[in-house]
Amino acid sequence: MKLLLTGSAGFIGSHLAEHFLAHGHEVIGVDNYLSGQPRHTRHLLAHPGFSFVEADVSMGLPTDTGPLNWVLHFASPASPPHYQQHAIETLMVGAQGTQHALDLARRSGARFLLASTSEVYGDPQVHPQPEAYWGHVNPNGVRSCYDEAKRYAEAITCAYHREHGLDTRIIRIFNTYGPHMRPDDGRVVTNFINQALAGEALTVQGDGQQTRSFQYVSDLVAGIAALMALPGPHPHPVNLGTTDAITVLRFAQIVRDAIDPTLPIRFVPLAADDPRQRQPDITLARTLLGWSPQVSLTDGLTRTIAYFRALRAEQQPVPTSGPAWMRGAADAGQSAATPGD
Amino acid sequence: MKLLLTGSAGFIGSHLAEHFLAHGHEVIGVDNYLSGQPRHTRHLLAHPGFSFVEADVSMGLPTDTGPLNWVLHFASPASPPHYQQHAIETLMVGAQGTQHALDLARRSGARFLLASTSEVYGDPQVHPQPEAYWGHVNPNGVRSCYDEAKRYAEAITCAYHREHGLDTRIIRIFNTYGPHMRPDDGRVVTNFINQALAGEALTVQGDGQQTRSFQYVSDLVAGIAALMALPGPHPHPVNLGTTDAITVLRFAQIVRDAIDPTLPIRFVPLAADDPRQRQPDITLARTLLGWSPQVSLTDGLTRTIAYFRALRAEQQPVPTSGPAWMRGAADAGQSAATPGD
Repeated sequence: MKLLLTGSAGFIGSHLAEHFLAHGHEVIGVDNYLSGQPRHTRHLLAHPGFSFVEADVSMGLPTDTGPLNWVLHFASPASPPHYQQHAIETLMVGAQGTQHALDLARRSGARFLLASTSEVYGDPQVHPQPEAYWGHVNPNGVRSCYDEAKRYAEAITCAYHREHGLDTRIIRIFNTYGPHMRPDDGRVVTNFINQALAGEALTVQGDGQQTRSFQYVSDLVAGIAALMALPGPHPHPVNLGTTDAITVLRFAQIVRDAIDPTLPIRFVPLAADDPRQRQPDITLARTLLGWSPQVSLTDGLTRTIAYFRALRAEQQPVPTSGPAWMRGAADAGQSAATPGD
Repeated sequence: MKLLLTGSAGFIGSHLAEHFLAHGHEVIGVDNYLSGQPRHTRHLLAHPGFSFVEADVSMGLPTDTGPLNWVLHFASPASPPHYQQHAIETLMVGAQGTQHALDLARRSGARFLLASTSEVYGDPQVHPQPEAYWGHVNPNGVRSCYDEAKRYAEAITCAYHREHGLDTRIIRIFNTYGPHMRPDDGRVVTNFINQALAGEALTVQGDGQQTRSFQYVSDLVAGIAALMALPGPHPHPVNLGTTDAITVLRFAQIVRDAIDPTLPIRFVPLAADDPRQRQPDITLARTLLGWSPQVSLTDGLTRTIAYFRALRAEQQPVPTSGPAWMRGAADAGQSAATPGD
């Protein structure tokens, strides 16, 4: 397959690119590095099946790609600190960005996938959330730039399916973690790991009794690959996430215990519009795709902590008196310590 | 004041333009006639304070307007048959259109008003709906092209206020009726009046026990004018509508009895995602603006029926053997029978 992937330098996009390349597909990555990381592009450019366009999807997409089998739209800031800092860009990549990706899929005869999110459910009043649940979102709150952008993205994807018969698919991604997350992602997984690796207290918002369900990134990638490979029309959203809920406090304790059991846990105020609880109903993914999450939290955390530990080691200042090849390697973000999955 | 008004040839836009011109303001109207009607522009062009730009707001807005005091964004298909027929255009005028209007307000130092809608509440589970209610909207349904576009429009309006300090205001317009509605609007007011004037049965969806609250257009215009005139920041949405709920069946009977009490009422299936009930909590508008609806349903309906009666008379075929001035007048949609308010 030949596919175009927006957000290829992002956390999930970079894993998808690696997966599809490893399975013999040809991947055109697109990113503007607003929240994606150049290291994830550099890492892939060595692969003969990979090419890259540095572009803002909200402004347009390449027109010279030739026929494509798939267009996957993953570009967007996705962590609350990033999307709140880039609220208008986040809104634009949900609207104009999604529409450009839909138009490209239409022009090039491709199957289209929208990366939507559990945040379309907002602060849900139904647990767990099946795809038929309409959600509970504040259209005016500080998170609305992301939540409403993704709801809009789903609506316009449905409109292209209805009006143009485009083969569209939508996944709603629940909390996902793993290597390649930005260290400054700002959500609990990276916050706790960074704090613990730095020997600092782990900061838990509110009373920590709000729950999260953490899916390891390779499980998500497997679900996406299964959905893309499925023949026939599947325009309805599909939840991809794990059903194993855990309180944020308990999660902090697990991370702490995996890194340094002597560290304290400190409680701080809850962020605005933070959902109390969110947990997918994955009946549809189980039946439609024969999919379910396979990686345990312990295994996933071990790999993720190893990644961030290596990243920290790599980012230690390189002695200027050291050999030139060593400084150059560190500058390019490529060294023996470059973390992989 | 000098103001730019998108959707100036629409039902509500045309009343707003008339109102602001009558109060000595200068109005630049913008419309692309997707759902607006050229007759509403022609009617205003005689006024020295009015100018008009035929343009699609989703594609951009004039850059040579000079300083503006207000930008009011009313462009959008608004009736379910229209927005479902033009789903992608409706999504675009909510996203790109709103952003172009926000950018114009920012460039020209203007106060911005977004015409939002009670449809952001979807099929509400709280009655009546206060502005703080987050709504109950299907992001994938056939109405999502409108509902989600307007929720997105609110979210980006809030983002411009937060990020750029723009003086933004949002109204959520509940069911409004009156002269200047399109005869093919497709909602109950025009459906019932047209059916009764044609001597046909009035078609009620479902069992007719779903309720609506019908606001006469001059009340809405008064509320908008009051909000625009208010000094200081008011970024939070304000409901404008009437609290007098009536069942659709009872409303059909009132229209029937006003036109021809002998007509039958026929029941037909309910449309998809049609809200059972929607009624504003207008406490905020009452306290903030000292506003409340003044026109009774009887008075409003009398004026509206008179308008549609005149429109039907005007649209009767003109005998080709008649005098040329008479044919020309009818072609231009301007005749002694042109209905006004």
